[in-house]
Formats: sequence, C-alpha cells, structure tokens
Amino acid sequence: MAKQDKEFVRDLTPMTEDYARWYVDVVRKADLADYTTIKGCMVIKPYGYALWENLRDALDRRIKATGHLNAYFPLFVPESLLKMEASHVEGFAPEVAWVTQAGQEPLEERLAIRPTSEAIIGSVYAKWVQSYRDLPLLINQWANVVRWEKRTRLFLRTSEFLWQEGHTCHRTYEEAQEETLRMLEVYREFVETELAIPVIPGVKTASERFAGAMETYCIEALMNDCQALQAGTSHNLGQNFAKVFGIKFLDVDNTEKFVWQTSWGVSTRLVGGIVMVHGDDFGLKLPPRVAPYQAVVVPITFGEATKPMVLEAAGKVVDSLRGAGVRTHFDNRDNLKPGFKFNEWELKGAPLRVEVGPKDIEKKQAVVARRIDRRKDFVPLDDLPKAVPTRLDEIQTEMLEAARRFVRANTHRVQSYEEFKQVIEEKKGFIEAGWDGTPESEAQVKDDTKATIRCIPLQGGEPDGLIDLVSGKPAKHKVLFARAY
Amino acid sequence: MAKQDKEFVRDLTPMTEDYARWYVDVVRKADLADYTTIKGCMVIKPYGYALWENLRDALDRRIKATGHLNAYFPLFVPESLLKMEASHVEGFAPEVAWVTQAGQEPLEERLAIRPTSEAIIGSVYAKWVQSYRDLPLLINQWANVVRWEKRTRLFLRTSEFLWQEGHTCHRTYEEAQEETLRMLEVYREFVETELAIPVIPGVKTASERFAGAMETYCIEALMNDCQALQAGTSHNLGQNFAKVFGIKFLDVDNTEKFVWQTSWGVSTRLVGGIVMVHGDDFGLKLPPRVAPYQAVVVPITFGEATKPMVLEAAGKVVDSLRGAGVRTHFDNRDNLKPGFKFNEWELKGAPLRVEVGPKDIEKKQAVVARRIDRRKDFVPLDDLPKAVPTRLDEIQTEMLEAARRFVRANTHRVQSYEEFKQVIEEKKGFIEAGWDGTPESEAQVKDDTKATIRCIPLQGGEPDGLIDLVSGKPAKHKVLFARAY
Repeated sequence: MAKQDKEFVRDLTPMTEDYARWYVDVVRKADLADYTTIKGCMVIKPYGYALWENLRDALDRRIKATGHLNAYFPLFVPESLLKMEASHVEGFAPEVAWVTQAGQEPLEERLAIRPTSEAIIGSVYAKWVQSYRDLPLLINQWANVVRWEKRTRLFLRTSEFLWQEGHTCHRTYEEAQEETLRMLEVYREFVETELAIPVIPGVKTASERFAGAMETYCIEALMNDCQALQAGTSHNLGQNFAKVFGIKFLDVDNTEKFVWQTSWGVSTRLVGGIVMVHGDDFGLKLPPRVAPYQAVVVPITFGEATKPMVLEAAGKVVDSLRGAGVRTHFDNRDNLKPGFKFNEWELKGAPLRVEVGPKDIEKKQAVVARRIDRRKDFVPLDDLPKAVPTRLDEIQTEMLEAARRFVRANTHRVQSYEEFKQVIEEKKGFIEAGWDGTPESEAQVKDDTKATIRCIPLQGGEPDGLIDLVSGKPAKHKVLFARAY
Repeated sequence: MAKQDKEFVRDLTPMTEDYARWYVDVVRKADLADYTTIKGCMVIKPYGYALWENLRDALDRRIKATGHLNAYFPLFVPESLLKMEASHVEGFAPEVAWVTQAGQEPLEERLAIRPTSEAIIGSVYAKWVQSYRDLPLLINQWANVVRWEKRTRLFLRTSEFLWQEGHTCHRTYEEAQEETLRMLEVYREFVETELAIPVIPGVKTASERFAGAMETYCIEALMNDCQALQAGTSHNLGQNFAKVFGIKFLDVDNTEKFVWQTSWGVSTRLVGGIVMVHGDDFGLKLPPRVAPYQAVVVPITFGEATKPMVLEAAGKVVDSLRGAGVRTHFDNRDNLKPGFKFNEWELKGAPLRVEVGPKDIEKKQAVVARRIDRRKDFVPLDDLPKAVPTRLDEIQTEMLEAARRFVRANTHRVQSYEEFKQVIEEKKGFIEAGWDGTPESEAQVKDDTKATIRCIPLQGGEPDGLIDLVSGKPAKHKVLFARAY
C-alpha cells in the first residue's frame, strides 16, 4: 500500500473507535453530503444526489404502479390552516420555520414552511372531492420539508430534507386501512429489494404516533451499531383531517360523508440507513441496484509506453459494460495512482471495480474486485458484459442476506427487566419483550434505558405468555424495543 | 352534439373574447393547476405535473448528456450571504420571503427563502474549488424557489415555482462564455424539439440583465396572443460572485485566480408557454413528446348488449398501443357519454383520440382523431401500433411548423416610431427595429408603448442601416421588441 493510500484510509475514523464520527466521515469523504453555514441544513453533493435519484426513481415507479399520481402543493401553510387540527399543530409547532415578511412588508398572517403537508393538502382536497366517483383519490408529492431540529445529523435529521408524501382519500375506513398497509408493504419491498435493508413492519404505540393520525405503521431497520432507524411510516388518518377541513363526498346512498384518509412518507434519511447498514471501516458499500456507478473501471498504467494501449482497452471495457446496461464510471484521472483510486472507490462504495493493466490485456482478461468482501479474481474480457451484471445481482442478494443475518444475530428476547437493561447496555440491537399496553411502562423503560418501543410487529406481536418488563402484569403485546436514531 | 357537451365547451371563454380568462380557464379546466388559499401559490394538479415530469426528464437527460451532475443545496439563504453581491440583493430584495422565527424563538439572522441560489451555492463552491483540477465544476439543481409577486398568473408568475438552475465554474472567461452559449443552445433545442415552441436566441440589454450577471442570454417565444414570453435564460456571471464569495483556485501556472461562473434556468412557466403557443378555443394542444397521454382510447358503447365486446376490443387496443411504447390512457369511465369524453380530451389536449365502437370492431378498424386539426379517419386495428407512433411524430413536426409560421407571420419590421406604435397597438407580435444602444431610448419606448426589447438576436442583430426609433441616431443593433408576459 502506497503511503498516500494509507493516509487516505487513515482519515476514516474506525467504527469501533467512534461510530458517530465514522458516520460523518463516511458521508463527507464519500461525497454524499456536507454541512453548510446554515444551521442544520446540508448540501447533497452530486454523488449523494445520484444515489438519491436512483432510490427516488425506484420508489416512484412503485408508487405509480399502485395507481398513484404525482402532484405539487405549495411550500407554505398559513398558520390558521396548520392550527385547525389541534394535535397536528401541537406535534409540529415546536419545529416550524415561520415566514413573517415578504419584500419590505410584514405578512398579515404567518406562513409555516411545510413540516408535512396534511393541512395544505386537506384544504385543497375539500374542493376536489365532491362525489364517491372522485374516490379513491391517490396522490403523491416529492418535495422538500422543513423541521427545525436542535440536534442534527447529515441525512438522519436535518432541518430541511427531501421526501415523498402520499396523501389519499377513501370512501370507507376499510379502504383507507387497506391503503395504509398496502403502502407499508410497498415500502418494505422497496427498501429490502433496492436498498438491501431488511425491515420489521409494525404499528407504533400511541406515544410514537404521527401527530393527527389514528394509527401509524412503520418499517424499522437495524443499523450496524445496533441502533434502530425508522425507515418509513404509513398513517391511517381516519377522519381527523377530513372533519377539520371539510373533505366530504356524496356517497352512492346519496348522503354526505367525510372521507377516510391516509398519508405515508420516506425521506433522504434512507441514505443514512444505507451508510449505517452496509458500511465498514473502508467506507460505504452501495447496493448495486441504487449505486450511482455499479462498476468503476480503473486503467493500470505503468509508464508512458503502454499507457495508450491500456487506456484504449479500458475504454472498450467501459463501452462494453455500458452496452450491457451497467452504470459504469471510467476513472481515467491522470494525476492519481491506481492504489489511491482503489481506496477512493472502496470508500465511495462502488460495488465492483474492474482493473485493466498491460498484463491483463495480454491475457485478454481483467481483474474484478467486489467491494463487499474485497475479493478479486480474473474475468476474460469477452465475458465481462455477462459476468458483471450477474455479479451485481449476486452482490445485491448477498448484501440483503448479510444484513438479515445481522438483524437475527442482534435480536434478543429477554424475560426480565434486569436482563433487558443488561442487553440494552451491552449489546443493544432489537429486544423482543412483553408490554402491558400502558404508556406508564413504556415511559419508564425509556427513562431508565433510552430504549423506545420501535413497534408492535405485524407478524409475531402476540403476547406469547410474556409479562410486562416494568409492571410485571401479563403482556398485551410482544414488542420490539431498541435505542433509535 | 349533446347538450352537456355543448355546456362543457361553452365553459371556456373564447380566446378572442378575453385571452387572459381563456388562459386561466384552460389551465384550470384541463386540470393543469389551480389557485390555492395562499396568495400567489398554485397547486400543480396530477395532469399538469405529469406534463412537467415529462418536460423535466427530457431536459434532465440533456443536462446530464452535456456533463452536468445534479445536486441539492439548502432552501435558505442567510441575509448576510444574500447581501454580499450588491446588485444581486438589490434585484431580488423586493420579492424575498423571510423566515424570522423557528419554533417559538426568533432567529438571530433572517433567512431568505431562495429566490435563486447563486449566493448559497457560491458560498459552498468556495470550499469545493481549490485547484484547476476541480474545474470545470458543472452542477445543476431541480428545486422550488420563491419570489413574492404582487400580480400572479398560474404557471407564468407565481410566488413559488419549480425550476432547474445550473451553476458552473470555469478556469477562463472563454470557457464560461462557451458554457453560457452551450446551455442556451441546449434550451433552444429542447424547447423546439420537445415543446414544439420556436424561439429566438438572443442577448438581453443591460436593463433586463439578471441581477449580478455580466451578460444575460435568453430564448424568447411568441404566444398566440402575439405577446412574448421569456422561455429560458443563461447568464455569464463573470467573476462577480467569485470575488464576493472567494471562489478561487490554484491554476496550472501556480497562481491563485478567481473562477468564471455561469448560471442558467428554465421553470414551470414553460407549461404556460405550451398552453399559449398551441392552445385554441377547444382548449389545450399538447406536443406528443411531452403529453402525459399521447393517445386516449374511448370505447363507444351503445347499449348493454355490445358493451362487453367493445370494452374488450378497446382494452386490446390499449394494450397494443402501450406495447408499441405509446403513453396510452383508457377512458373507460362508465358514467359519461363518448361525446363528453371527446370534448374533455380535446380540452386536455391529448394528441390522438382512438374511438372503438361496435361497427368499427366489425370492420376491424378504429377511428383516430387528431387534436391539432380535429380530423378523423379510419385505421385498421392491426395497423395501430405502427400508425399511432408515426402520427405522433407527424403531429409533433406539424405543431412546430405551425408555430414557426405564426412567428414569421407576426414578426414585423418597422422603419419609424409611428409605424412601430401602430403595429404594437394593432398587431403586437415581434417587431424588429433599430436601437442606438442607449437606456434612454429603450426606456422611452417602454413608457410610450409597454413594449420592451426582448433581445438582441444572436442571428440578425446587425444594425442593417436602421435608425433608432426614438433618437433617430444610427442604430447600434437591430433588436426584437414586444409586449411580454
């Protein structure tokens, strides 16, 4: 390893030394995002944004395939609108950014920058929905939202972030509930298939519910520091917003009724999830399906004599891979050594690296290195257009399987509160335990251990004869505890 | 024509009666966008947003093909940053929305909601650019921006709008100038090819220049009411922002230099341009390349007996068109008469309507109606997958040609100010006339006639022996005057 290569890698704080610093190091040095002078706001750099675009497009296809249409609603929510749903404004007021002035003049009414769009969209839907024929109304929006956060972390918690928010109206409670669970399943399948992040779908307790919702469902993921990350939420809003904003329709039976609504969203925080589920001390590992570059071709040029030949051969490899539909980057920078490039693309998590040197060309082969285990082998040049896509598929599968094994290995079942405290302190991870359904027990555990109920899993949430950790009473549910981001 | 159909069409104000009302009628009734309770802010409805998505994707491909990468910068610009470039803040201050409070607390410094992102991006670029090896820096952002407008019009001038803004840094003035003109040409080709809107590329006069730019280039289009619309701008920023924000690099000659910058943008106002270039008294006409639905299949069901057969045959047509890559909508709504649907899809501008009725099925044919001239003919069912894409191409070409003819017919050359005044009053359109290059003449014409210099055309801007309209002095340029949106 050349000296500069060592230094390059040494720049990354090891995960075991300081996980939070490792995370920030990876996000910044892999060129995903960076801080700005504006408190809590980040800039998403081109490499990070390309990752977000792939993720967004993959989800957008699924949102459209399930019958939803995209639209765009205003950035601003007048204070009077935001205040109409009492628990909604109570939940969001502490983190709302307020516009009070435009040009030289003060506004008559303060405008909130949307922290979420239920209020503004509800007021518009009241005009759009008239008859049962207008239902279901299935709309999604890709947008920026602002929640003024005291403590921020790149991607995980920023004052401004990008997300999609679905907002739907239905004739009946049952249809709304079906939609809520349908979109939860869309999220689960999307996150597992595209991001190779296994998740536990479940329902939130009342204390963790979205402000204004009847029920909040979520998918919960486990990061490689054994803390949990809420990766997406889907809310059955009931008729709370419909009643407040007057979203009514004339039903088939000729009577006027309020609609039943849902809303659901995932955000740029998923990028943080990718970093923390798959990353290691060498940096990022990107799932091939969303990686900006699935393969990076590095020409190995020793001396000027063979350089033109190597660059030409490497260029042909690039063309053949692109022809095979592989997102391929040609790293033909002239001022950097191959070893430096290897380290950089490991840091940036490119799933495959293809090295082409003079000897390889003689043997009509290339070196192919997998980021996930850093294994290298030789592949005949002619085989690359078939071999690379196959390997990308394999890597995607292996990443999901490895992450699944990690979740299994770090999901613990405890019988007593003592055991719980020991596990949360020493191992963290997901802890399955009994809960009697009271907010008191839930709050006590949080106060004592900083662990929260991530969800009551949709599968396996039965009490199973467990007892509540705190009260010792018979459990109403088996729930999943964890310390969370 | 059934009574309800007549009423449906009658709802549209004729263009000749009141063009402004016609415009708003079309935008609202064709489900492109609608007003909201928030002053100057619109909601882009699903049909309008699908149009925007197609337009955005077509431009995004071109932006990427010319080597630019997308990124995302913060929504907020601290007042101190916005103020750093004096003419920039002077130009934008009157229309800036200010965030002064977050949660319960006043902010230490006011934050502008970006009216454009030169300031915030400049402050970030100062960190990113160090060496000539970092140049050119070619970045684009898709984002919402806010400019508080007193008088607003859906799509054309709204307090919040969506756009893309490219921001690039270069080693030399020449490279920046080349980029400025390259992106102007990308816009021209994009707008003409995809939107079938012919444009005149040119350079703005100093009074119409972007606040902070060295030179502003534009593409100007002519609406069918003979008023002009600025359809896109590309600015050579010189070193104005570089000097203010300290964007410096170590050049090959080992000296530190300021970068040369460009910025360029188009916005959702292009949707308004599509409405006003192509629309007529029946509503929208969408260019096939960006139309959400290129073909709409309407089953003609008379009575219950033949209905299942017709729906099945129409469904097969839908499948065959989709198989041929045509964006196809199946309007199988059960509660509406075919005549109503015909009017609705004419209003919504679908390029082709395919009617399938019992008699057509017998003859193994369908009726295909072109929106642009409302001509109908019969096409054998088996030929549809080939005939429809061909016709869509033809329509796209015809739309551009028709719009070009319109521009030619409404471009006037005048010799005297009297003649100018008469033409601008009676015909409007583009007027070619001489200008001596002084702000005084320019301002006088504007005061007298509300016409502005849209641009000095890149081709044909030579003085040609003309004299200035106001001063009578020899013209420095032949310029394009018009009343504009």
